[in-house]
Amino acid sequence: MTTGIHHSSPTAVSVVGLGLMGRALAQALLRAGHHVTVWNRTPAKAAALVADGARLAPSAGAALRSADLTILCLTDDEAVRGLLGQDGVVLAGTTLVNLTSAGSAQARETARWAEQRGARYLDGAIMAVPPAIGTAEAVILHSGPRTDFEAHEPTLAALGTVTYLGDDPGLASLYDAAGLTMMWSVLNAWLHGTAMLRAAGVDAASYAPFAQQIAVGVAGWLPGYAEQVDRGSFPAEVSALETDARAMSHLLHESAALGVSTELPRLFKALADRAIAAGHGSEQYPVLIEEFGRPTP
Amino acid sequence: MTTGIHHSSPTAVSVVGLGLMGRALAQALLRAGHHVTVWNRTPAKAAALVADGARLAPSAGAALRSADLTILCLTDDEAVRGLLGQDGVVLAGTTLVNLTSAGSAQARETARWAEQRGARYLDGAIMAVPPAIGTAEAVILHSGPRTDFEAHEPTLAALGTVTYLGDDPGLASLYDAAGLTMMWSVLNAWLHGTAMLRAAGVDAASYAPFAQQIAVGVAGWLPGYAEQVDRGSFPAEVSALETDARAMSHLLHESAALGVSTELPRLFKALADRAIAAGHGSEQYPVLIEEFGRPTP
Ligand SMILES: NC(=O)c1ccc[n+]([C@@H]2O[C@H](COP(=O)([O-])OP(=O)(O)OC[C@H]3O[C@@H](n4cnc5c(N)ncnc54)[C@H](OP(=O)(O)O)[C@@H]3O)[C@@H](O)[C@H]2O)c1
Ligand SMILES: NC(=O)c1ccc[n+]([C@@H]2O[C@H](COP(=O)([O-])OP(=O)(O)OC[C@H]3O[C@@H](n4cnc5c(N)ncnc54)[C@H](OP(=O)(O)O)[C@@H]3O)[C@@H](O)[C@H]2O)c1
Repeated sequence: MTTGIHHSSPTAVSVVGLGLMGRALAQALLRAGHHVTVWNRTPAKAAALVADGARLAPSAGAALRSADLTILCLTDDEAVRGLLGQDGVVLAGTTLVNLTSAGSAQARETARWAEQRGARYLDGAIMAVPPAIGTAEAVILHSGPRTDFEAHEPTLAALGTVTYLGDDPGLASLYDAAGLTMMWSVLNAWLHGTAMLRAAGVDAASYAPFAQQIAVGVAGWLPGYAEQVDRGSFPAEVSALETDARAMSHLLHESAALGVSTELPRLFKALADRAIAAGHGSEQYPVLIEEFGRPTP
Repeated sequence: MTTGIHHSSPTAVSVVGLGLMGRALAQALLRAGHHVTVWNRTPAKAAALVADGARLAPSAGAALRSADLTILCLTDDEAVRGLLGQDGVVLAGTTLVNLTSAGSAQARETARWAEQRGARYLDGAIMAVPPAIGTAEAVILHSGPRTDFEAHEPTLAALGTVTYLGDDPGLASLYDAAGLTMMWSVLNAWLHGTAMLRAAGVDAASYAPFAQQIAVGVAGWLPGYAEQVDRGSFPAEVSALETDARAMSHLLHESAALGVSTELPRLFKALADRAIAAGHGSEQYPVLIEEFGRPTP
């Protein structure tokens, strides 16, 4: 992982796709001193970048040809293959970093497609909003051939905190999806707690530091719990699932009594009850990996 | 908040209820050098504590009489009122800290009940397992009259990290419930992500540090988001709910394609869709407080 923004020797980089995100990417590369070529279907979106020193390529194919590295940021991977599959676009000899959002299966498909046409290909996922690009806060995940990542890491580091996850080009999109699950879960849990406390007249600002403290504390257990998952052995070192399920019932009743949403406690209880029914009541929470690892009944 | 364990001048403390948790509480008080009196319905459970220097009272009433402060830790508040409501138990002049788990309405009822009988009363909630008691890791929440908390904080600090939440005796139990919601949410999100990554051959240990990093990062947003909730104004500074909902659909499809549980993404989407249907699609995520603040439809 490269954390923070370093200046590297200038490279010739192209950015293809100048939507909200593509423009932020190109701007960060310009600020880092790279030679930036841009292309967009609607050329007007390049104006501010050209004023800041970018070169506007006459075609997507020309943008690819003039760069050591081309960053792609379009709406979806269909648009990417549509655009780069056109006559006159030569992929052989290019290096592509596709930061367009896609599912993992699609990312692997696009990787195969590009590699068959002679390109070097990395898939990426941006865990940030455009204004964060170019700061350490912008986490950008990469997967694909390690040597290609390492060759271009100094340039990519201009975009944010860049991380390499592994050879499988589907990994960036999977980590991204898993990260979003964590994000919405923390936000929902915080909102549920805030709603409970507001029912007792406590404002959101008073409760938030407590929610933060608990989230950080529980996050600290994950590496240890992960060892249980990898070993497939879940001894109840601190608490058994059956004990948890009783506390979940109390939480459900408390939520109902307060007149707030019962959706989270109901989900907790449903998952725990299924695992208990499967015989895991005296094991520890991470045994629920079995429930999460199969399709919802 | 008192963090960490300090030694205070010895006090006369009673512990009533010597189950798994009560024994851990009494042990921590003995270790801190207090004069500890204990009582349990089944007296045999006091043996190890007596060997370590505790005095066994002949009755619950006698335990209360011999202490400046009595800590209660029974199965539930019905047992507390059943026991302390018996003839010969005088509550007038005592100070009770009830660490028995209860709902917020019940905690308030027990507080009223005890205060009507002349006791000073604090309600508490233990966010820890027995082996953690007596270490800074054990978070113990208190609510009720501030002066009573402050008078006994030096003694209570022997039990763990003690926190005072406010006058309303229901607060300790509400914060506890909100904290459990956060705990299970972080664990479930981590398990969901782990299941997704395992489908691509990534082990749990490789994924866990990433999950931890995201949870800690998102937890850092909560104080700022809480200001939006308190103001009741949710401008889309970083992302609109409609954009989130599209990413939720992708997450749902990805989960289904991987053959893992779809319960979390379905819940995320259902909540966001309801808020969008209520006209909040161009606002920011914390606007969902409105969904969490009402009974589930
Ligand atoms: N914005 C964010 O907060 C954010 C965060 C993380 C990830 N992302 C991802 O970044 C990617 C781009 O997002 P964005 O916010 O920049 O979207 P956007 O503002 O809607 O821009 C979409 C871009 O794709 C181009 N495009 C679409 N279809 C095309 C086609 N068939 N041929 C050629 N060009 C085409 C558009 O060209 P025209 O200008 O000609 O329409 C435009 O440059 C998406 O995959 C998104 O999920 C965005
Ligand atoms: N253990 C944990 O991890 C944990 C964590 C947080 C909070 N808590 C809370 O702490 C409290 C105690 O838990 P625990 O784990 O110590 O439970 P436990 O081991 O089952 O002990 C229950 C205690 O309550 C007593 N009791 C029950 N009914 C009674 C009655 N009618 N009259 C007199 N005494 C009665 C029992 O006496 P006998 O010995 O005579 O049966 C025993 O001392 C519960 O509210 C629990 O939710 C526990």
